[in-house]
Amino acid sequence: MKKLIVGQSGGPTAVINGSLAGIYYEAKKCGFDKVYGMLNGIEGLLEDRIVDLDKYFKNKDNLELLKRTPSSFLGSCRFKLGSIKDNEKNYKKIFEILEKHSIDSVIYIGGNDSMDTVASLYDYAVANGKKQNFIGVPKTIDNDLPITDHCPGFGSASKYIATTIREIIQDNNVYGDTKPTISVVEIMGRHAGWLTSAAALAKDDSCDGVDAIYLPEIPFDIEAFVKHTKELLKKKSCLTIAVSEGIKTKDDKFVCELVDENLLTDSFGHKELAGCAEALCKILKKELGVKTRAITFSTLQRAAAHLVSKNDLTEAFNCGRKGAKLAFKGDSGKMVIMKRVSNKPYKISYDVFDDIHKIANVEKKVPMEWIDTKNNYVKKELVEYLRPLIQGEVKQIYKDGLPQHINLK
Amino acid sequence: MKKLIVGQSGGPTAVINGSLAGIYYEAKKCGFDKVYGMLNGIEGLLEDRIVDLDKYFKNKDNLELLKRTPSSFLGSCRFKLGSIKDNEKNYKKIFEILEKHSIDSVIYIGGNDSMDTVASLYDYAVANGKKQNFIGVPKTIDNDLPITDHCPGFGSASKYIATTIREIIQDNNVYGDTKPTISVVEIMGRHAGWLTSAAALAKDDSCDGVDAIYLPEIPFDIEAFVKHTKELLKKKSCLTIAVSEGIKTKDDKFVCELVDENLLTDSFGHKELAGCAEALCKILKKELGVKTRAITFSTLQRAAAHLVSKNDLTEAFNCGRKGAKLAFKGDSGKMVIMKRVSNKPYKISYDVFDDIHKIANVEKKVPMEWIDTKNNYVKKELVEYLRPLIQGEVKQIYKDGLPQHINLK
Repeated sequence: MKKLIVGQSGGPTAVINGSLAGIYYEAKKCGFDKVYGMLNGIEGLLEDRIVDLDKYFKNKDNLELLKRTPSSFLGSCRFKLGSIKDNEKNYKKIFEILEKHSIDSVIYIGGNDSMDTVASLYDYAVANGKKQNFIGVPKTIDNDLPITDHCPGFGSASKYIATTIREIIQDNNVYGDTKPTISVVEIMGRHAGWLTSAAALAKDDSCDGVDAIYLPEIPFDIEAFVKHTKELLKKKSCLTIAVSEGIKTKDDKFVCELVDENLLTDSFGHKELAGCAEALCKILKKELGVKTRAITFSTLQRAAAHLVSKNDLTEAFNCGRKGAKLAFKGDSGKMVIMKRVSNKPYKISYDVFDDIHKIANVEKKVPMEWIDTKNNYVKKELVEYLRPLIQGEVKQIYKDGLPQHINLK
Repeated sequence: MKKLIVGQSGGPTAVINGSLAGIYYEAKKCGFDKVYGMLNGIEGLLEDRIVDLDKYFKNKDNLELLKRTPSSFLGSCRFKLGSIKDNEKNYKKIFEILEKHSIDSVIYIGGNDSMDTVASLYDYAVANGKKQNFIGVPKTIDNDLPITDHCPGFGSASKYIATTIREIIQDNNVYGDTKPTISVVEIMGRHAGWLTSAAALAKDDSCDGVDAIYLPEIPFDIEAFVKHTKELLKKKSCLTIAVSEGIKTKDDKFVCELVDENLLTDSFGHKELAGCAEALCKILKKELGVKTRAITFSTLQRAAAHLVSKNDLTEAFNCGRKGAKLAFKGDSGKMVIMKRVSNKPYKISYDVFDDIHKIANVEKKVPMEWIDTKNNYVKKELVEYLRPLIQGEVKQIYKDGLPQHINLK
């Protein structure tokens, strides 16, 4: 009897369940006898809250529904295991629970923090002669995991952003010269500007695209921003500007802090950002006397299953499959990665990176040579990198006019 | 030579161009020799800014693209003509321009304010023996026009809201009991709660739906709101609450005014609302100590062409066709309306209402008997009214992963 348990961790995406579906599908195929799910990630595992996934997915239709259900089917957590030295009790407990259920393999789907959890569990197993193996499957809309070409979840969030920005631009231009309007669109991405750069995809023959893009990789200069916007207004009366939630001034202050003190700290010590677009709109209105509108995508950008990229969902599924194969083989302390074999035609290979410690807690940022700092935009190399990731549409399963999802009950 | 001119006015919708497409299609079919478009509605007409629509739509593919392009192809305005007595110069100028181009008929696509424009132009024509005729075609995501069963644009905005709320709920529940979270979703609708009530559609076997709905038809009691939310939290750790941007306390103050003074006035004297969800989140956080998230749909809800309702787009097109027929016949001072012949199966007839004065500036609100004031929800009669309006999907025309639109160039 070979047994696998899967967990989902960190912020959800529109295709994180695609990876769960791929893991379940391949685990069954390659020979695991049981596939469990831990509820709310490692936090739930510590409380022995686990489910038998056969209950839900022996029915193949449900597996298709799972692939089209946004957010984490198993629930998520932002639980930090911490160092083994200071938290041995928790580590011991986790292995007791794994042993109680005779679980051989653990797959954790997540981003930087989650890979840190995988690395720590692997280290504990090695140090204590435990037989369980641990595999990471990448997931993050932020696309900030190193080594892998990109992360499942990012392509769909990018497609959502590019599509929605096209629609926002259509709306924003509606009064034309009769009522100059600036929409400032705030996009997720605390330290890495990948997702904000997807705003550049909106531009083509049928759409002017956004007029400026501000990434967190570049210190944000408010005076220069106002000046640049003023210049843009000389050529066009209606502007749409994309900004990352994480833009900071050169003295390391978040832009939203300049206007409002609405910052909190989450359990990883990250500041929760809100209101950067709002802050910039207040500034533009005051300085340029123009109508402004702050648009914040909030969780819509990571949960929009109705607008996933087919390539992204396929890759999420395949990363899950690859993870299950590695787990079955007994690999441990490793993460599934994607390599871009070619860009035109777009081709991806699924591979494995051997040392998850080198992935955990490392943030991959947008390379400076892909940012057009002069024009506050991104360069065509970045657009070419992004373009394949948003290709293809996936039809939702509609009932009575609305997409159907599957949930634990 | 029979000549028609069409204008679009007021806030855009995802299917207002569907009506424009229907007008163009039927006008050509029934015998108009020329179909012009006025740019930025009546405001552009006053400046003689008009285009020949043949230039764009002789090509049938472009007409299909127009149906899938959100916001107003011709541009819009919020220009108030005002009384004939005080603004005779503008009225005279409009008729001079119509005569200069030998235009026989005018169709105006819009909401309450736009129908006031149609009524005034009709009155002027009658009083001054002018031969031009004026027809209104309804459009508003707010669904607040009287007489017509509902308005084109409302169904698609409702479908967007119900779909997106399902995804928000999936996301909102992700940490479960480990991190109670309340998302407050703010929906457009200054005085009428129709669009906010569409949040109720999210509920079915696969989705719990929103936990409370607050419409502007009912005075908003903050104390009762906190108390009710506290009660809900006893049963569930994660809540999603839908509120209209226009909710007011019983002493007639907008909820956002209570926390922030971010109110402006647009050119019709309407207050521009923003931040009501934000305000409620601040209150809930303070009173209940729970994590909150304010989500504002902003212009996304009216511009989401990628998620239109097929029924809505069909009806927008057909209302346009009906308008062209009436215009060709020489009818004037009238508006196209829809009548619901039956609900199951859903059947609509397209009709005409003879006196546009009775439509202009009248706001149809949600009937009190359709609101469940005890449970802060809406009644099943309202859900049954809404359900047919969001049925069916329309495939966008995708190129390189993104929907294509058509614009004036």
